[in-house]
Amino acid sequence: MKKILLVLTIISSTVSFSNEDSLFVRKIYDMALEGGHAYENLRSLCKDIGARITGSAEAKIAIDWGKNLMDGYAFDHVYLQEIKVPHWERGNTEAAWIMNESGDVAKLSVLALGGSIGTSGLIEGEVVKVESIQELEALTPEQINGKIIFFNRPFDQKMIQTFKAYGACVDQRWEGTNVASKLNAKAVVIRSMASSTDEHPHTGSMHYDKDVAPVPGAAISTVDADRLVDWLAKGTVTLKMEMDCRFFPDEISYNVIGEMTGNEDDQIITFGGHLDSWDVGEGAHDDGAGVVHSLEALRILKELGYQPNHTLRCVLFMNEENGNFGGKSYAEIAAENKEKHLCALETDRGGFLPMGFDVVGNSAQVDFIRQFATLLKPYDLLKFNPGYGGVDIGPLRSYYPEMLQLGMAVNSQRYFDYHHSAADVFESVNKRELELGAAAMAAMIYLIDQNL
Amino acid sequence: MKKILLVLTIISSTVSFSNEDSLFVRKIYDMALEGGHAYENLRSLCKDIGARITGSAEAKIAIDWGKNLMDGYAFDHVYLQEIKVPHWERGNTEAAWIMNESGDVAKLSVLALGGSIGTSGLIEGEVVKVESIQELEALTPEQINGKIIFFNRPFDQKMIQTFKAYGACVDQRWEGTNVASKLNAKAVVIRSMASSTDEHPHTGSMHYDKDVAPVPGAAISTVDADRLVDWLAKGTVTLKMEMDCRFFPDEISYNVIGEMTGNEDDQIITFGGHLDSWDVGEGAHDDGAGVVHSLEALRILKELGYQPNHTLRCVLFMNEENGNFGGKSYAEIAAENKEKHLCALETDRGGFLPMGFDVVGNSAQVDFIRQFATLLKPYDLLKFNPGYGGVDIGPLRSYYPEMLQLGMAVNSQRYFDYHHSAADVFESVNKRELELGAAAMAAMIYLIDQNL
Repeated sequence: MKKILLVLTIISSTVSFSNEDSLFVRKIYDMALEGGHAYENLRSLCKDIGARITGSAEAKIAIDWGKNLMDGYAFDHVYLQEIKVPHWERGNTEAAWIMNESGDVAKLSVLALGGSIGTSGLIEGEVVKVESIQELEALTPEQINGKIIFFNRPFDQKMIQTFKAYGACVDQRWEGTNVASKLNAKAVVIRSMASSTDEHPHTGSMHYDKDVAPVPGAAISTVDADRLVDWLAKGTVTLKMEMDCRFFPDEISYNVIGEMTGNEDDQIITFGGHLDSWDVGEGAHDDGAGVVHSLEALRILKELGYQPNHTLRCVLFMNEENGNFGGKSYAEIAAENKEKHLCALETDRGGFLPMGFDVVGNSAQVDFIRQFATLLKPYDLLKFNPGYGGVDIGPLRSYYPEMLQLGMAVNSQRYFDYHHSAADVFESVNKRELELGAAAMAAMIYLIDQNL
Repeated sequence: MKKILLVLTIISSTVSFSNEDSLFVRKIYDMALEGGHAYENLRSLCKDIGARITGSAEAKIAIDWGKNLMDGYAFDHVYLQEIKVPHWERGNTEAAWIMNESGDVAKLSVLALGGSIGTSGLIEGEVVKVESIQELEALTPEQINGKIIFFNRPFDQKMIQTFKAYGACVDQRWEGTNVASKLNAKAVVIRSMASSTDEHPHTGSMHYDKDVAPVPGAAISTVDADRLVDWLAKGTVTLKMEMDCRFFPDEISYNVIGEMTGNEDDQIITFGGHLDSWDVGEGAHDDGAGVVHSLEALRILKELGYQPNHTLRCVLFMNEENGNFGGKSYAEIAAENKEKHLCALETDRGGFLPMGFDVVGNSAQVDFIRQFATLLKPYDLLKFNPGYGGVDIGPLRSYYPEMLQLGMAVNSQRYFDYHHSAADVFESVNKRELELGAAAMAAMIYLIDQNL
């Protein structure tokens, strides 16, 4: 054993748990893995209902579905929280083609970005490829006028955590139409926000700044983006596109809430995922998994006869995908009602192998969570790092800036193969990985309820 | 933060690595994730060749394939190591049915166990269900005579590590026919060794003790096992089965070996997976993944211009699945040639997310590996525990009892959905997870070569 530069210091930590805690966490896992409801609930949400974008009939049915399940589980308090939400629909027409100077034509796999205006008939323009917002901003209206901007920056595959690769690209989708509009572009297409190279276009949210004239935005598959790059390398390419997506008037919708009432005080531990999804696929990983994780966590704690110290509140948020009015309204109503909020946890990264929890908080709060590492290690929960909580619970921090928040961290390698695409279906979720996620949520909720 | 019983001791470890090591590991990952060959090599092995049981034409083509790839990568030394192997074939006929007292009939999804004799025509017998070898041993020849034993003990889903659930069941497959034969049973069927409930039967190895008259053995799908349990609860069930699997004379085959020659001494670091597979599916996870992990690890180290201290030897072992004559012969030849073996690593748990390495060795050897934990943490390699190395490298320990061995530990949750079944195909492997496995192997080989 030569070349060891320094003597290894043995890693050690002092365990701060009772055997009772350890046994109870084991019971949670046993119940999830042997008789869990998460997988069947996800099947039902995906197959009996399907994709459920805010404002759709499916979203309304999903609200009934969630409340009925909670009623059936006989949680102490089950109710709907009224909120106002946007209503955008994809419409019936959605198609795009590219043509080169030789007259070759190829149909693209395309999806309007969520929130885009339609095209008002078939539009066309010469394609200008850029790799970033900054590259486009350096061009002039004369160079861009009437053309179609193709944002092509792919995921950086070298990033180990795929959410970081997503974060480094998503400005093209969110902001691209605004910059393009200022330069008089006719429309925007983006390379799909995806880790994989395949035929699926991946939609997702975009927005229009108030001061710009909106132009349509769409995503094309990574395979089509590669083809478009090839064609552009050989000459001028024209893109033709028609989409009739549009907004409808805002609507009333609901967050679905179920609680177990605490013993000690009126402090609340909120946990949940989002009930809405994009309108393609089945919203299985995003975020059917988080919905059934959260329902199952509360079911298991109740089924095991657990009497919580604090109120455990499971929230199935509406409208995370295009507006986050579920999360925003939940936080506003909490503050208006002067609720006391102890902590919030979110699960919105898919039904993959759970690996730990990201912690939003100060160093003492991070240490508080890390004390559970030894107890949770046998369950392969190994990552407890400062990080991100979730979109739905994020707004709570405006009103409760000191509150501890957690986001369940799962294996992220496959998430962006499915995310916001037709591939996000029930069959892409593994039963054991899903059930382990529900158990991880229940265990962390239990440990926080016992110790915070 | 009430109820914390003890003050948390902050976990700390002393890092014993140079910045150079850290940068080199980063280069390994960059090369694997951005321009890796593992995924395309796996596609080729699965689709251009396919399932490759020892003795099959496909196994012979796979040997050429492996050697050609190594020659193409211009490793310092590429050669075939001759070994003698068994040759068993499934044959053309493989079918089974169950019938109940009402005359209902159901066809079973069935696969002969590897190494089973055929049935010599259609056989039938009343089904006797047992949950264990011990339960069967408690019965008498009078109770069993002419009947067909159904081993039904399922995986214990409560076990977090699926390999432990497999280990707790697999005696039924490996040993069941011997016990059944002694009681004059006509045949054995087993519930497939699987985590999931589906239509796929899962084959795998069995053996006949010298002192017993062999009886045929087969696996039925978990769905069919559940159906059979249901029918048995209502009355007598007869099983009819025909299989014409059989052994052929032993053959000559080969381990495929590629090396980079070390600078310092003639000590060898062996690493590899197995080139053979079962004869259904495509052997993608078992162990096409390990084959391409290992090839890719050596390719990356060479491509980065790394000059190893010790000889790095990539071995594609033949015949892991039904005899392990590749692994046994490799160890015997090593000892005969008085080779010096420093360490061996195996990757044979599928192309899933790598999570760390199991270590076979004394506590100093475990600590030696654990010193790398801090450096590897950013790559989500988080588990470095005493454990199991692998079937192929196992025999080396008979000749080199002190040697350090490692088995790459990956997310095991989905492995037994695919293992030894028609579901183990290329499409079940994720590109990034596979490439991360190759990078993890290369990084660990590099760190051992630098530090041991």
